[in-house]
Amino acid sequence: MMMDVALTTWLLFEHAEGAYADTEIVTQRSPTEQHRSRFGDFADRARRLITVLDDLAPPEAIVGTLAWNSAEHLEAYFGITLSGRTLHTLNPRLGDDDLAWIIDDAGDEVIIASGDLVATVARIAPRLRQIPRIIAIGPVDPGAANALGEVLDYDALVTSADPAPGTRTLDERQRAGICYTSGTTGRPKGVASTHRSLVLHTALAVNAGNGPALSRSECVMPVVPMFHVYAWGLPFGAVAAGAKLVFPPPTLNPAVLIELIRAERVTKAGGVPTVWIAVAEALEANGGDLGALRELLCGGSAPPPSLITTFAERYGIRMLQAWGMTETSPIATTSRLPHAMGELPLADQLDHIASAGAPVAGITLAVVDETGSEVPHDGAHMGDIYVRGPWVLDGYLHGAGPESFTARPGWFRTGDVGTIDPGGRLRIVDRTKDLIKSGGEWISSVLLESTLMGHPDVVEAAVVAIADARWGERPAAAVVLAPGTSLSLAAARAWLETHGVPRWQLPDHLVVVDEIPRTSVGKFDKKVLRAQLASLADERPSSSLPASAPPD
Amino acid sequence: MMMDVALTTWLLFEHAEGAYADTEIVTQRSPTEQHRSRFGDFADRARRLITVLDDLAPPEAIVGTLAWNSAEHLEAYFGITLSGRTLHTLNPRLGDDDLAWIIDDAGDEVIIASGDLVATVARIAPRLRQIPRIIAIGPVDPGAANALGEVLDYDALVTSADPAPGTRTLDERQRAGICYTSGTTGRPKGVASTHRSLVLHTALAVNAGNGPALSRSECVMPVVPMFHVYAWGLPFGAVAAGAKLVFPPPTLNPAVLIELIRAERVTKAGGVPTVWIAVAEALEANGGDLGALRELLCGGSAPPPSLITTFAERYGIRMLQAWGMTETSPIATTSRLPHAMGELPLADQLDHIASAGAPVAGITLAVVDETGSEVPHDGAHMGDIYVRGPWVLDGYLHGAGPESFTARPGWFRTGDVGTIDPGGRLRIVDRTKDLIKSGGEWISSVLLESTLMGHPDVVEAAVVAIADARWGERPAAAVVLAPGTSLSLAAARAWLETHGVPRWQLPDHLVVVDEIPRTSVGKFDKKVLRAQLASLADERPSSSLPASAPPD
Repeated sequence: MMMDVALTTWLLFEHAEGAYADTEIVTQRSPTEQHRSRFGDFADRARRLITVLDDLAPPEAIVGTLAWNSAEHLEAYFGITLSGRTLHTLNPRLGDDDLAWIIDDAGDEVIIASGDLVATVARIAPRLRQIPRIIAIGPVDPGAANALGEVLDYDALVTSADPAPGTRTLDERQRAGICYTSGTTGRPKGVASTHRSLVLHTALAVNAGNGPALSRSECVMPVVPMFHVYAWGLPFGAVAAGAKLVFPPPTLNPAVLIELIRAERVTKAGGVPTVWIAVAEALEANGGDLGALRELLCGGSAPPPSLITTFAERYGIRMLQAWGMTETSPIATTSRLPHAMGELPLADQLDHIASAGAPVAGITLAVVDETGSEVPHDGAHMGDIYVRGPWVLDGYLHGAGPESFTARPGWFRTGDVGTIDPGGRLRIVDRTKDLIKSGGEWISSVLLESTLMGHPDVVEAAVVAIADARWGERPAAAVVLAPGTSLSLAAARAWLETHGVPRWQLPDHLVVVDEIPRTSVGKFDKKVLRAQLASLADERPSSSLPASAPPD
Repeated sequence: MMMDVALTTWLLFEHAEGAYADTEIVTQRSPTEQHRSRFGDFADRARRLITVLDDLAPPEAIVGTLAWNSAEHLEAYFGITLSGRTLHTLNPRLGDDDLAWIIDDAGDEVIIASGDLVATVARIAPRLRQIPRIIAIGPVDPGAANALGEVLDYDALVTSADPAPGTRTLDERQRAGICYTSGTTGRPKGVASTHRSLVLHTALAVNAGNGPALSRSECVMPVVPMFHVYAWGLPFGAVAAGAKLVFPPPTLNPAVLIELIRAERVTKAGGVPTVWIAVAEALEANGGDLGALRELLCGGSAPPPSLITTFAERYGIRMLQAWGMTETSPIATTSRLPHAMGELPLADQLDHIASAGAPVAGITLAVVDETGSEVPHDGAHMGDIYVRGPWVLDGYLHGAGPESFTARPGWFRTGDVGTIDPGGRLRIVDRTKDLIKSGGEWISSVLLESTLMGHPDVVEAAVVAIADARWGERPAAAVVLAPGTSLSLAAARAWLETHGVPRWQLPDHLVVVDEIPRTSVGKFDKKVLRAQLASLADERPSSSLPASAPPD
């Protein structure tokens, strides 16, 4: 019948090497330092890296990367997995304790690190059970190198190795990668991808028409870091499709992003809404445009409708929201606009674009109530979101968090709560643990936050539950205000009420803060915020930060 | 690690059923008769068809379809394969002898036929070893029904059956479909697809950015028949992506196509260049435009550059060429324009768009010379094209044509000859059997044909080899001329020479014909043409059809 070709990263790589050899890869290492190469160079160096790893590490070793977005990190994505080893992307923004714990938990034998991050490894080395071999991309601080004993030079190793020839036979169900969850509750948990899951996610999510739809005609800029769920799969997709790749520098200066987008004729870029808010503000302040950019991929949290409108009306740029998580590789649903809505005015499309949209082919959803029954598709009944598909986790590394897989056999419990409307659209109401249960009814922190952020003086808003003797829990809001403005609890409640929030859901507390605590991947850290606001419990409604915030 | 979800047509269907329930399916049965439904109806009826087949046929039966493009044929694509049975699409344009032979060879136990095609089955019934159960879509001529004994009514069966619930567990490597090659040499050969190959072709070719890239935002019209390699996979892709589907009537009247494209806001349409030439001529003659159409998918033969230019400049419509064959499911390469060429004037893009382009992810190519070595990527050295990938055949049904799989183990020999240029682009020089070997050197019939078709008076041209005592073979051209024009051999040779064809490649014979014989799928039938022109062998150059054309 049909050839039995394994679904491994070789399938994403092998045709690209020859057919797309001319395609460019641009790495902007800093606002002033740029590196340019082509897919032909990349493929040659990825093959050389296979040889380097064959010499340094056992055939099934776990190889960490602690690196910014770059051509070298892309070589590592492929060199490591093509060699049969496991790519473990490490997040340099994690606290030292979590980072050390993750390296030990995964069992990394080698770490390929950006030169400036070798100091991070040196700092956490005393906490590690065993120190991995370190390969540094670019110059390393001598003090850090000394502390580690030996640091190998990535470029020297790769340049002097021979390219591994031919194709390596791998089992498509063998492990290809490990990412850890961001761990807003307890320790991060390891999520292992197989070659098969990476290929199917690339094919059915990243390069599919309903996803980012990378192709040879596109130039994609992953602003999302490559240590964050494989930059949503964009690097794998770009290689498979022959799309030009532009890697921005780690410091996300909007002016630098705007200039890169224009100069390289970037057509699609992916990042969290915060990045695009900053870009929109910089354009607003300084003028200019975004050249060939046509689509922004948004994930992490829902883009505000005002942002969608700004990009659409002022710059002719569409926004595509994707929903998912580390455990779903990550793309599960996207908000690609249905053909039937194509002729509607933007105002009537906004609701769809800002929703989590619909599952891509391969993913099935179940939104179920407390009895285990699927909720009606009426946009009102909410339930726990379960996911199933060939790039959805069926168990964490080392058996962590088994309760996510047992509640509904064959499905993953995402921990998100949502509704499905009659058009089949998923809407995320909240994380299960961030919902506020007041008098037996659920209040969505996400709805309160997005409505507060619509207030002209509110820059950011986060809402958490505060213990309440009478109601169980009540909402408390922390807000960052625009310079020179103020907001009282009464004014905030009035704003929310006039914007459709039921009276019983209005927050009982409002605190003005300089910044909202965030996790290593830039999400609101509600665990920390809840601790900071815990002393409000059973107080009368207040509007100032508690005198003594508990320690982080 | 990751869930083990099988790659079966359930994966293309299951999420679509709920998430895309509102998406429309339009079947234009004739210029005046239209049927409209939605994905929700389609999914419900496909599930009912599973029940119908469970009652009528063994679990692993082969179920033929002899049907025009329609919502019912789409239900059959899914109902048959979801049930675990094999979909065998039959080409009603085949001769009776081949059609009967194919039904027997595959072993069809049931045939779902368009009502008007039941007469075809009745006509060939006496040639069949065993007559399958016939299920008719729409009204049937009573004479035909009587001849067959019993003809079941598709709509009555489906309406009265219960929808099969849940999901059926199938092995992704089990057979899902059978298509036969068009058989321009000898008997047609059976090509069996697996569920896995259908899903991967859908994901990595049809719905990929480098392919037709179907999504929810698109409305796709497969002009290519559903009996022709699954309409290039467009129906499977549309369901998986939630793209609106528009099925044109079997008689390809350009005015009807244009009106459908405009009325339904079709954004992408797929068909052979002949169709688009007719559409362009009708627009030229009668005015009008193509509404929301943005991309035409071309396959079967290369679109002439003038056609690409007309659609791009006059209507703002891109052309995407795809190359492949029944044995490659069919899409292997596409001519998606690289980002680096995006800013070039159209004239400089034409050469790329009209080429076979580059392999999509999953496909690797090898173009090898007679010694088995890969030819240099210089655009000049030609060789046999071999293909490898998870939707490429590794053996015909019942072991036919083994020589295609043995020359280079693990690869399929396509029978096409081509070159690869330094940019990684594939160019099809010819079918191996259509090349003309003259004095030990190869002449491309395709090059002579496309250059002749650039002559203002030549409507169509086909070139075949004629035996020659001195040179082995020499080229002979058959041309269809515009009304009221004439063309001598000398004038044709002069035209070719001034357009860059080397003198030794100029045809020795030219015959003017009313039409060029075609196969059942609309390609030039060079087997028939060679037979018709065989009597020119060893004659002096002539310019009239031989007095007695041999029988078909």
